[in-house]
Amino acid sequence: MYGLITRLTAHAGRRDELGLCLLDPNVKRPGCHSYVVAHDVNDADALLVTEVWMSKASHDAWFNTIRESRVMRPALGLIALWGDTVVTRPIGGVGL
Amino acid sequence: MYGLITRLTAHAGRRDELGLCLLDPNVKRPGCHSYVVAHDVNDADALLVTEVWMSKASHDAWFNTIRESRVMRPALGLIALWGDTVVTRPIGGVGL
Repeated sequence: MYGLITRLTAHAGRRDELGLCLLDPNVKRPGCHSYVVAHDVNDADALLVTEVWMSKASHDAWFNTIRESRVMRPALGLIALWGDTVVTRPIGGVGL
Repeated sequence: MYGLITRLTAHAGRRDELGLCLLDPNVKRPGCHSYVVAHDVNDADALLVTEVWMSKASHDAWFNTIRESRVMRPALGLIALWGDTVVTRPIGGVGL
């Protein structure tokens, strides 16, 4: 499995909008076992996005499709700061 | 929902053991929607634990039960550094 934890900071006051864009039900994620969008309770503009994919290949294939389709463009315009991504190797748990 | 993201650093060379302790199938987590234990690919001793609970109350009730039962004691002995926990408010996603 392949995991990512990313902190995204929205432009001031736009976090809810960014969260909705990231959760757009039209954006399918084949090979994604878990994708959680969450507010940082200590930063009014920050979201934490945690992802578990079947493999890096499945994530990268999705990412390339998304980039070409431009379906995530509204979300990208709302991001003020794209924090460092922590890359992980999930080994198990509840809900995988 | 109530979320937690925690970095745990195991004593040198003990990460696999710590991961197995955290994934002990005897430890039930009622009210937990997602619990993922993952290796940090850039730190050979670090784990990232991401959790989504129905509520803070369900997490705290579980935590109190665990503390009393001492079932997590083997895991605690393997942790060299308990990193800061990021508390989140999950709003949705895949697998919740």
